[in-house]
Amino acid sequence: MTTDLRTEEDSLGTMDLPKDCLWGIHTQRAIDNFPISGIPLSHFPEFVRALAWVKKAAAGVNRALGALDAGKAETIAAVCDEIIGGAHHDHFRVDMIQGGAGTSTNMNANEVIANLGLIRMGHCPGDYARLHPNDDVNRSQSTNDVYPTAMRLAIVSQCAPFQAAQRRLSAAFSERAGAFAQVHKIGRTQLQDAVPMTLGQEFAGFAATIDEDVEIIGRLSQLLLEVNLGGTAIGTRVNTPEGYPERAIAELAQVSGFEVKLAANLIEASSDAGAYVTFSGVLKRISVKLSKICNDLRLLSSGPRSGFNEIRLPPVQAGSSIMPGKINPVIPEVVNQVAFQVIGNDLTVTMAAEAGQLQLNAMEPIIILNVLQSMRILMQAMDTLAERCVKGIEANVAQCEGMLENSLVLATMLVPHIGYAKAAKVAKTALAKGQSVTETAVELGFGTREEIAAMIAAQM
Amino acid sequence: MTTDLRTEEDSLGTMDLPKDCLWGIHTQRAIDNFPISGIPLSHFPEFVRALAWVKKAAAGVNRALGALDAGKAETIAAVCDEIIGGAHHDHFRVDMIQGGAGTSTNMNANEVIANLGLIRMGHCPGDYARLHPNDDVNRSQSTNDVYPTAMRLAIVSQCAPFQAAQRRLSAAFSERAGAFAQVHKIGRTQLQDAVPMTLGQEFAGFAATIDEDVEIIGRLSQLLLEVNLGGTAIGTRVNTPEGYPERAIAELAQVSGFEVKLAANLIEASSDAGAYVTFSGVLKRISVKLSKICNDLRLLSSGPRSGFNEIRLPPVQAGSSIMPGKINPVIPEVVNQVAFQVIGNDLTVTMAAEAGQLQLNAMEPIIILNVLQSMRILMQAMDTLAERCVKGIEANVAQCEGMLENSLVLATMLVPHIGYAKAAKVAKTALAKGQSVTETAVELGFGTREEIAAMIAAQM
Amino acid sequence: MTTDLRTEEDSLGTMDLPKDCLWGIHTQRAIDNFPISGIPLSHFPEFVRALAWVKKAAAGVNRALGALDAGKAETIAAVCDEIIGGAHHDHFRVDMIQGGAGTSTNMNANEVIANLGLIRMGHCPGDYARLHPNDDVNRSQSTNDVYPTAMRLAIVSQCAPFQAAQRRLSAAFSERAGAFAQVHKIGRTQLQDAVPMTLGQEFAGFAATIDEDVEIIGRLSQLLLEVNLGGTAIGTRVNTPEGYPERAIAELAQVSGFEVKLAANLIEASSDAGAYVTFSGVLKRISVKLSKICNDLRLLSSGPRSGFNEIRLPPVQAGSSIMPGKINPVIPEVVNQVAFQVIGNDLTVTMAAEAGQLQLNAMEPIIILNVLQSMRILMQAMDTLAERCVKGIEANVAQCEGMLENSLVLATMLVPHIGYAKAAKVAKTALAKGQSVTETAVELGFGTREEIAAMIAAQM
Amino acid sequence: MTTDLRTEEDSLGTMDLPKDCLWGIHTQRAIDNFPISGIPLSHFPEFVRALAWVKKAAAGVNRALGALDAGKAETIAAVCDEIIGGAHHDHFRVDMIQGGAGTSTNMNANEVIANLGLIRMGHCPGDYARLHPNDDVNRSQSTNDVYPTAMRLAIVSQCAPFQAAQRRLSAAFSERAGAFAQVHKIGRTQLQDAVPMTLGQEFAGFAATIDEDVEIIGRLSQLLLEVNLGGTAIGTRVNTPEGYPERAIAELAQVSGFEVKLAANLIEASSDAGAYVTFSGVLKRISVKLSKICNDLRLLSSGPRSGFNEIRLPPVQAGSSIMPGKINPVIPEVVNQVAFQVIGNDLTVTMAAEAGQLQLNAMEPIIILNVLQSMRILMQAMDTLAERCVKGIEANVAQCEGMLENSLVLATMLVPHIGYAKAAKVAKTALAKGQSVTETAVELGFGTREEIAAMIAAQM
Repeated sequence: MTTDLRTEEDSLGTMDLPKDCLWGIHTQRAIDNFPISGIPLSHFPEFVRALAWVKKAAAGVNRALGALDAGKAETIAAVCDEIIGGAHHDHFRVDMIQGGAGTSTNMNANEVIANLGLIRMGHCPGDYARLHPNDDVNRSQSTNDVYPTAMRLAIVSQCAPFQAAQRRLSAAFSERAGAFAQVHKIGRTQLQDAVPMTLGQEFAGFAATIDEDVEIIGRLSQLLLEVNLGGTAIGTRVNTPEGYPERAIAELAQVSGFEVKLAANLIEASSDAGAYVTFSGVLKRISVKLSKICNDLRLLSSGPRSGFNEIRLPPVQAGSSIMPGKINPVIPEVVNQVAFQVIGNDLTVTMAAEAGQLQLNAMEPIIILNVLQSMRILMQAMDTLAERCVKGIEANVAQCEGMLENSLVLATMLVPHIGYAKAAKVAKTALAKGQSVTETAVELGFGTREEIAAMIAAQM
Repeated sequence: MTTDLRTEEDSLGTMDLPKDCLWGIHTQRAIDNFPISGIPLSHFPEFVRALAWVKKAAAGVNRALGALDAGKAETIAAVCDEIIGGAHHDHFRVDMIQGGAGTSTNMNANEVIANLGLIRMGHCPGDYARLHPNDDVNRSQSTNDVYPTAMRLAIVSQCAPFQAAQRRLSAAFSERAGAFAQVHKIGRTQLQDAVPMTLGQEFAGFAATIDEDVEIIGRLSQLLLEVNLGGTAIGTRVNTPEGYPERAIAELAQVSGFEVKLAANLIEASSDAGAYVTFSGVLKRISVKLSKICNDLRLLSSGPRSGFNEIRLPPVQAGSSIMPGKINPVIPEVVNQVAFQVIGNDLTVTMAAEAGQLQLNAMEPIIILNVLQSMRILMQAMDTLAERCVKGIEANVAQCEGMLENSLVLATMLVPHIGYAKAAKVAKTALAKGQSVTETAVELGFGTREEIAAMIAAQM
Repeated sequence: MTTDLRTEEDSLGTMDLPKDCLWGIHTQRAIDNFPISGIPLSHFPEFVRALAWVKKAAAGVNRALGALDAGKAETIAAVCDEIIGGAHHDHFRVDMIQGGAGTSTNMNANEVIANLGLIRMGHCPGDYARLHPNDDVNRSQSTNDVYPTAMRLAIVSQCAPFQAAQRRLSAAFSERAGAFAQVHKIGRTQLQDAVPMTLGQEFAGFAATIDEDVEIIGRLSQLLLEVNLGGTAIGTRVNTPEGYPERAIAELAQVSGFEVKLAANLIEASSDAGAYVTFSGVLKRISVKLSKICNDLRLLSSGPRSGFNEIRLPPVQAGSSIMPGKINPVIPEVVNQVAFQVIGNDLTVTMAAEAGQLQLNAMEPIIILNVLQSMRILMQAMDTLAERCVKGIEANVAQCEGMLENSLVLATMLVPHIGYAKAAKVAKTALAKGQSVTETAVELGFGTREEIAAMIAAQM
Repeated sequence: MTTDLRTEEDSLGTMDLPKDCLWGIHTQRAIDNFPISGIPLSHFPEFVRALAWVKKAAAGVNRALGALDAGKAETIAAVCDEIIGGAHHDHFRVDMIQGGAGTSTNMNANEVIANLGLIRMGHCPGDYARLHPNDDVNRSQSTNDVYPTAMRLAIVSQCAPFQAAQRRLSAAFSERAGAFAQVHKIGRTQLQDAVPMTLGQEFAGFAATIDEDVEIIGRLSQLLLEVNLGGTAIGTRVNTPEGYPERAIAELAQVSGFEVKLAANLIEASSDAGAYVTFSGVLKRISVKLSKICNDLRLLSSGPRSGFNEIRLPPVQAGSSIMPGKINPVIPEVVNQVAFQVIGNDLTVTMAAEAGQLQLNAMEPIIILNVLQSMRILMQAMDTLAERCVKGIEANVAQCEGMLENSLVLATMLVPHIGYAKAAKVAKTALAKGQSVTETAVELGFGTREEIAAMIAAQM
C-alpha cells in the first residue's frame, strides 16, 4: 500500500488519492456513492472495450477538426488501444448499478485514460493540466452520447459470439435429429397421447426453433448500430465542432469494426430506450423457447421406470445421496433457471426504459447491466446444454416403439381404411380390455395382423 | 329514444343530455373521454356497492355535524340503499380504465345519486339546486379519499366469497386424499422416480397448500380496512367539519358491516398503493400454487397409455375431432391460464403503484380493475376446478402399484436392512436385467420374496 | 324461451339443446365448463372472421381435392362469407379463457357453420348427417392448425388499423412540433436544467419515436403470416389429402387477402408460441414509449403555478369538486394505465408461451385474448391521446422563454467565447445572487447585454 | 500449483483432484457442469453459514439417536463452528445458478466439512472411509430438506439487518420531517397544484410508509421459520431414525438461535415455494415504495431554476462535464434502479416457484440467488439513501412559501368564508391577470390583505 498521496479537486472540494491511482476524484466519489451490487465495470470487458472505442474515435476526430492537439490525440489513442487489447480493465471500478445516467462510468474511463496517458507522456497521474479527463479525453462529448453509444457497441460486439452459441446448440439438436430419424414414437398434445411422429422430427423442431432466432439477433444488432454520438447533452450537438457527429460516426465505425450509423433524430435518440426493450425482448423470446425445450427434455427422459423414458440424458453427476442410482436432468434444469433469470431481467429493463424522463433516460446503467448479464448467462447456458446434454442424448428405441404399438391413438390411422365409427369401436374396446389397437382390430375382424399393421404404416 | 333534452353546465361549458338521463355532464364527458376497455363500472357490482356505502356514510355524518340538511341526507341514504341492494347499477357507465385518479367514477356516483334523489323528491333530473352532486352528495369528500376507500371495501367485500371458494377447493382435495389414503405410489423429484408415498399424501399436500392461504386472505383483508376517508384532497382534512373523519369511519363501519379504521397517517394513506401490491401479490402466490397443482394433475393423468396415468380426471368434453377417444385435461388447463392472467395483472398493479407521484396515485383505476378481475377469475377457476375436476378424480390403483413395484428406488428401502452396497447392487442388476427390485433381491439371495417385501413395507 | 328441444350426442353422452340453437353439444359443454372471464369469442370480431376465413379456405380445398362434395363446400363457403361480413357473431359464445388449446373455439365455429349451413340447405339445426361439424366443416383440419392460424390472421388483420392509429398520433405530434418550432426552452436531463432546445424539437422527438414502430408492426405482421394450416394434430399432416397444406395456404391467402405462407417446419410451428412473444414484446415496447411520452406531457404541463407549466393540455373535464379551477392531465393518465395493462398482458403471454409442452401449446387461448386486448386498448389509447390531447396542446411561450432566460445553464453557451473558468464564475455568482446569467455576465464585465445575448444565441 | 493428486470415485467414474483440495468429486463435477453466472456460494456468507447450522444440528441429533458415533459428530460440529464463524467460505465454490435442486450445494458442504474434519482428525482429504460426506455428514438428510431449510435460515438471518436499514432510513426521514415541520408548501395531485401542506408532513409520510414494512418483514421471517428438516427426499421421513425430525428442529433452533418449527405437512413443505413468492413480493412492495419516494425527491428537487426546487439534495458528485455547476440526484436514481432490479428478480422467483413439479421444486437455486441478492442491494440502497441523501436534504423555504403564496388553489381555502362562487371568481380572475389569490381577493373587495390572509391561515 502506498502512503504517498496526491490531491484532486472538483466542484465539491478536494480529495486525497494514492499517488499512482489511475482513477481520479470523480471515480472515487462514485465508488463511495454506489456500494450497491459489488459488480464493477470490469466484470464486462466488452463494455470497457466499447468505451475505449468511443474515446479513441472522439480523439481522432477532435484532432482532425483542430479541437485537440496531435500529441494528446495520439496518446489517447495509444492508451485506448491497450484497453481495447484487454489491458488496464482492473481500473474500471465503478459499480455497474449507479446513479447519474452513466456519468460515473464515463468519468472512470476519462480519468483512467488521462492518467495512463500522463504516464505514457512521462508525467504523473493527476497532472491534468497536461492531459485533462474532461477537456481532452471527453472533448466534444457528453456522458449522454458516450454512454449509450458504448452500451450499444458492447451489446453488438457480443452478438456474433451469441449467434455462434445458438448455432452450436442448433447443430447439436440437428445431429441428434438425424440419429433419431427412424425412431417412431407417439406424439403428445396436452400431455395426452396423440398421433405418431419420429423422435427425429421432434429434435429437428428444437433445432428449427433455435435457428430462427440466429437471424433475429443479427437483424437487431443492425438496429443497435444507430447511435447518438455527437448529440452530446441532449441531442442538440451543443459544444461540438461543426461536422463533428458525422465524422465521429465514421471514425467509430473504423475503430470498432462495426457499421455504426448516426441516429436520424438525435433528440429522440438521447432519451429513447426502446432498442434495449426490443433486444431484451428477443432474449426473453429465446429464453421462453429454451425453457420449453428443456421442459420437454425433462419430460421425455422422465422415469426411468415410472415416466415417459423415451430418451436418456447423459449422466453428468450423481443425483442423490439418499437414493442410489438416481440421475437427474440437472443440465436442462439449470437452463430453465437461466431462462427465468433472463425473463426477470427483461422486466427490469422494461421498467427502467419506461422511467426515462424528458431529454434523457437516467436509468441506463441498470439496463446495460441486465442486458449484458442476460446475454452472458444465455450463452453459457446454450453451450452447457449443447455440450453436456444434447450431444449425449440417446433414444430408448424399444420404449418409444413399445408405447406407440400400445397406443390407442393408432385407431386414428385406421379411419381412412375402416371409417370413423369402426375405428372408434376399436379404440373403446382396446381401452376396456387393456389391449393394443392392432390386437383388438384383429379380434373384431377388421383385418389380419398384417393388414392392420399395413393400414397403420400407411399413415406414418 | 327520448328527444327531450336537458342542458348541464360545468367549468368547461354546457352539454345537452337526455332529459331523464340519470348521469350528468361530468359522467358524460368521462364516457366520451375514455372509450378504452369497454368495461363499465357496473361490471363490478361490488365496487358500485362500495361507492354507495361511502356516500351513505358521508351523508349521515354530514347531517349529524350540521353540514347537510336532514331531508337531503335521508334522500341520499335511501337512494344509496337501493344501489346497495343492487338497483340502478346500469347507470354506472364510466370505463373502468380512466384518467383522473377516479374522479369520473366518483362523479358518476355523485350524479346518479343526485338524480335518483331528485326523482325521489319529486323533481327532475338535473335540478341540482335542490340536490347537488358536488355540494350535497360529495359534501366533505374528495375523490382522493372516496375512491380509495371504495376500492378497499370492494376488495374486502369479495374476500369472504373468495375464501369460501378456497375452502371448497381445499375440501375437494381433502376428500379425495381420504379416498386415496391407501393408494401406494412412487414419489417423483425432478421428474425422476424417487421414494414411495401414497396418492392420499399427495392430494393432502394440495389441500394443505391451498388452506394456508385462506388465513392469509383474511389477514390481508384486515389491512385493507385502514382507509383514508375524511382526509379529502391530500390527507390534510381540508374542507371537512371538525371531527368528520373519525365519525365518517364509524358510520362507514356501520353502513358496510366492515370494521374500517382510520389510517394512522392520512398524508401517506392518500398516495400509498402498497396495500394493493401486497394483496395482488398474494393473489399471485395463490395463482403460482394453483398452477403448480394443475401442472401436477396434468402430469399424473398423462397418457393414458404413454404417460404416468396414475389418476383419471373426469371427462368433461371430447378432446379432439381428429383423434377418437382423446380426452384432454381442459379444466386444469384453464386454471393454468387464469394463473398466468393473474400474474400478468399483478405486474400491471405493481407498475401502477410505482407510478404514484407526490400526494396521490393517479393510476388507481387500473389497479382496482386488475385486482377485482383477478379475484373474480380466480374464484371462478377454483370453483370450476373443484366441481368439474377434483371431485371426480379417480385413482388408477393398479398402475400406481405396478409402477411402485417395478421401481428401482425400492432399493433405497433395503438400505437399513442389507446395507448401501448390497442395495446398490440390487438396483444396478435390476436395471441391467429389466427386472423388479424384489425379484432381483430374491435372485441375489438377500431374502425370500416375503422377507424382501417385509423390508420394503417397513419403510412405507 | 323456446321449449322445443333437440338432442345431441358426443362421446360423453347426450344433451338437450333448444331446437333452433345454432351451436351444438361441444359448444354447450364448453360454455358450461369455462364460466371464467365472461368475455365471449364474439368480443373479438376479428378472431371470429379469421376462423371463418380458415373454414372457407379448407372447404374450398377439400372440394378441389375430392374430399368434400361441391354442395357442402358451397354451403360452407356461403355461410363463412356471411360471418366474414359480420353476421352471426353472437353465436360465438365460448369464453375466451378456455382449456383445451382452442378446441372449444374450433368446435363453436364448426357447429355454428354446420347449423347455419343446414338451415341454408333447408334442414334443421342438428341434422348433422347432412352437414357435419367435424366430418365436413372441420375436414382435413385439427384445432391444432386451425386455431393458431386464426390467431395469427386475427392479429395480422388488426395491424393495418393499428398502424393507422400510430400514424395519426405521430402526425398530431408532428403538427404540434411545427407549431412549436420557434419556442425556445430549457432542456432537462435527470430533471435538472440542462442546455437549450426548442419545444418543437421535443415534440418532433415524440413523433419520431412513434413513427419507428409503424414499420416494426409491418415487419412483424409478415412473420405472423407463416402459418401451420395443414399440419393438423401435431404437424405431421395426418389425415389430410395429398397436397392439402400447400393448397390450403394458397386458398387462405385468396380468401383472407393476406399473403400467408406455410411454416417451414410444421412440427415446430405446431407448438411454438415465439411469434406471439415477439409481437406482444413490440406492443410492450410501444407502451413503454407511450408511457414515457405521457409522463413527459404531464411533467411539462405541471403547475400551472407551481410546476414546469411549459405547455397547456386542452381541458377535457373538470378536475376536482373540491378545488375550483383544477384541470388534470386525464388523457395522458389513461394512456399510462393502458401501457401498464399491456405490459402486464405481455407477462401473461410470456408465461403462457413458456408453458407449451411437447407437440402443442395448450395455453394459446390466454395468449390470443391478451394480444388482441392489448392491441385494442392501445389503438383506443393512441387515438384518444391524439384527438383529445395532443391536437389541442398549446405552448406557454412566455414561461418557456422566461425559464430559459433565467437559467444558469446558459453559462454553458458562454464557454466557447469566454472560456470554461469565466463561465463557471458567472454560473456560481448568478446562483448565489439569484440573478440571471446574462445579468451576471454583464455585471462581471464579460460584455454588454447585447454581446452576451449574441454569444448565447450563437449556440442555440 | 500442487501436482500431487488424489483420486475420488462416484457412480459415474473416477476423477483426480489436487491432494489437498477441500472439496470432492461431486463438487468438482458441479463446478464443471455449471459455469453459468460466475457467482459462487461464498458470495452469500449467510447461506454458507446456514448450511453449517443445518449440518451441525443434524450431526448432534444423529449422535443422540445413535446414528453417528460421538467422535465423528464432535468433529463435524467443530468444523461447522469454524464455518459459522466465517472460515473456509472460499471452498464453497459451486455456482449459485445450478441444476439439481441444490444437490451440488449440499454436496459442496458435505465434502468440505468431511475433508476439514479429516484434517482435524489427522487424516488426509479424501480418506472418506474415516469420515464420509454422505454417510456421515449428510446422515439422515436429503438435499431436499437440507437445502430449503438453509435457504430459509439464510433469508431469516438477514431480516434483522434488513430491518435495521429500514429503521435507519425511516429515522432519517423522520428527523428531516421534524426540521421541516414549519415549511408550508403546496401539495400536488396528478402533478397539478392542490391544497397546502407542510414539507414536514410530506417527509413524515415517507417515514411512515417505510416504517409499516419493518413489521411486515418481521412477521414474514416468522413464516419462513417453518422448515421441512427431517422430511428427507419427499417429506415422508424416509431413512431417518424414529423421532429425528422433531429433535433436529429443536437442535437447529439452538444452533442457529432462530425459533424454527417443523412444517405441518412435510409433503407439501418439500415442494412448496409459496413462502419465497410472498417474501420476494414484500421486497417488491418495499421497492415500489422506495421508487415512488425517490421519484418524489427527484421531482421536489427538480430545477434549480426551471423546476419545483422545493428541496436541495446534498451534492455528492459533479453532475456533468459539459454543463458547469450541474448537480444531479444520483442517489435517488440509483435507488430507483435497485427497485427495478428487485421487481425483475421477483418475477424470476415467481416463475421458478411456478415451475415446481410433483414432490420437489428443482428451481430453488435461482430462487435463493434472487432473494438474497434483492435483500442485499435493497439494504445497500436504503443505507446509501439515508446517509448520502436524506440526512443532508435542505428545504428551499422561500421557494416553498413563494409558490404557495402564488398558488390559485388558495381560493379553495376561501370557500368556507366567502362561498364557492366568489372563491371561483377570485381564482379565475387571478389566473387571467397573473396575480396572486390574496391580491385578487383584496382587489375584488372580499377583505383586507390581513383578513384574506387570516381566512387562508385558518385552513392550514
